[in-house]
Amino acid sequence: MADRLPVAVDAMGGDDAPKVVVEGARIAAERYGLPVLLVGDPERMGDTGDLPVMAATQVVEMGAEPASSVRALKDSSIVRAAEAVRDGAASALLSAGNTGAAMAASLLRLGRIKGVSRPAIAVPFPVRGSTPCILLDCGANADCRPEWLVQFAVLGTVYSRERYGVARPRVGLLTIGEEAGKGNSLVKEACELLEEGGWAERCGARYLGNVEGRDLLTGVADVIVTDGFTGNVVLKSMEGGYAIFEAAVRETLRSTPEVAATAPVVDAVLDPLFEGFDPVRTGGALLLGTRGVSLIAHGSSSAIAIANAIATADELVAIDIVGSLRASIANDIEANTDPGS
Amino acid sequence: MADRLPVAVDAMGGDDAPKVVVEGARIAAERYGLPVLLVGDPERMGDTGDLPVMAATQVVEMGAEPASSVRALKDSSIVRAAEAVRDGAASALLSAGNTGAAMAASLLRLGRIKGVSRPAIAVPFPVRGSTPCILLDCGANADCRPEWLVQFAVLGTVYSRERYGVARPRVGLLTIGEEAGKGNSLVKEACELLEEGGWAERCGARYLGNVEGRDLLTGVADVIVTDGFTGNVVLKSMEGGYAIFEAAVRETLRSTPEVAATAPVVDAVLDPLFEGFDPVRTGGALLLGTRGVSLIAHGSSSAIAIANAIATADELVAIDIVGSLRASIANDIEANTDPGS
Repeated sequence: MADRLPVAVDAMGGDDAPKVVVEGARIAAERYGLPVLLVGDPERMGDTGDLPVMAATQVVEMGAEPASSVRALKDSSIVRAAEAVRDGAASALLSAGNTGAAMAASLLRLGRIKGVSRPAIAVPFPVRGSTPCILLDCGANADCRPEWLVQFAVLGTVYSRERYGVARPRVGLLTIGEEAGKGNSLVKEACELLEEGGWAERCGARYLGNVEGRDLLTGVADVIVTDGFTGNVVLKSMEGGYAIFEAAVRETLRSTPEVAATAPVVDAVLDPLFEGFDPVRTGGALLLGTRGVSLIAHGSSSAIAIANAIATADELVAIDIVGSLRASIANDIEANTDPGS
Repeated sequence: MADRLPVAVDAMGGDDAPKVVVEGARIAAERYGLPVLLVGDPERMGDTGDLPVMAATQVVEMGAEPASSVRALKDSSIVRAAEAVRDGAASALLSAGNTGAAMAASLLRLGRIKGVSRPAIAVPFPVRGSTPCILLDCGANADCRPEWLVQFAVLGTVYSRERYGVARPRVGLLTIGEEAGKGNSLVKEACELLEEGGWAERCGARYLGNVEGRDLLTGVADVIVTDGFTGNVVLKSMEGGYAIFEAAVRETLRSTPEVAATAPVVDAVLDPLFEGFDPVRTGGALLLGTRGVSLIAHGSSSAIAIANAIATADELVAIDIVGSLRASIANDIEANTDPGS
């Protein structure tokens, strides 16, 4: 552990930052033994224990316009955290703050892996009894070109294999019908490119063709590609639906004295189930395609969720996810007559 | 009831058609006292009781290409059912078969309400303790023009008020951030048109601006507009997620003998909750904008779901939903310098 660089944590990002983020960082360091670098305003961070702190006096607020904020606020915690990775002071970046700002700071300070047209946000969806299904792009690129979706397929394949050990990831294209030709104009064009299939052979994927929204949680696919608008809407719809459903079940199970009396027995089995479904606890969305690990946690992350995300970031560095992505993209581009935009 | 026209039911459409559909039609007629016309192949329909039958020898299969099938199969049940409405032999059309074919048959045989650029599929999402939130378009138009979304807002407003009694429906634009300017290029253009606001005043809506996927079930909005690709993906993701979640909860509540023993008490409160969430039981998606009521039920609808959808179709005719839509669109177009495409 001594030779491992710390994970740079944006202490000022998150609904309850810096308090909950600092708590999470301390759990990661003190309980899990992980190296952590806190980046933020020392005046506001409270008790940081023995953790190293990198001072940053500014904050990009949750609602702020990402790109201009990142350009203007050069001493903001998210920008300084990204610079720590760029400068070799940290191994990876974690933020639970403004997603767009985390993305912009990562893009501007870390840069793209050579050959990557557009980095994408990859989110693992929990599949019962199996490895997660990775959906990308979940919001980095609202408007996409068809060839970007092919590259997302390659990035997602590498992520599924390297992080979850899926030997030959099954990749689907998200659309509104299983037959080829179903979808909007972007999907129809992407469908043709994906079906050429050379990319799948080169990166070791199995291309499934079209999949539908219902396939996200069924274990049919390991990777599902879509544009960043659709992906983000689906992600937030599913998170919202899940939260409402869990709350309704919990409330209903207290709605009469008779059913409330079953709580000790019922909660003992339902609590672990709910934990497995909860998107907040899955450990963050990864920005795939930047030269460095940049993990984005949910704004409402608890201290434990932050600690788990730090562990995930540390693990992604340990398995050299960026090196694997770089190798696959280089391989794909070498074989491809069109080197991309 | 004697002066009421029957609902034309596509007996051959649905995962378990014609058996389950005929069962549902009989429940609607025999238990609810609703007038029903069964359309399909008399040889295959089994015991239809006292129900009137309109013979149609062909079937558009579930996976078939909609537009060409509807053109080619002139004696198919879905085409004959739509003609029954057009010709005044039925009041409304219900199909649990190929959604695209139901849409194509409705468009070709019923036609559009004057001034409607593109009919849209409207699906009510259940909101706990409130009236449903209507999402449209859920799949009629995979690629949309910005001005169509404004018209969807008008159609959805009328539907919310006439069917659910919401006096001044709150309408949101589905996107990936609450601030104006967040979204893909379609949403950005639609956002500008929607914010002009004249449409809302004319049809009696309150425009909320941007909403996110999580707002579908929270009761924040009564109507949410989106393109047919995004809407269909969200609908299927939510349906799929819901089904997985319900199954997981039910299975977990049988996973040990101790928790299984609580079943009588627990199921008594959970069953009604699950019923309220179940999209299959909400009574169908309505094609808004055609000259006649065309209701599309889920392919996996049970007999009871079919009977409920027939009741919904009958109710939509009774409240003259088509007349209200026609009046609002005419009013909107009269006031608008640009009469639309």
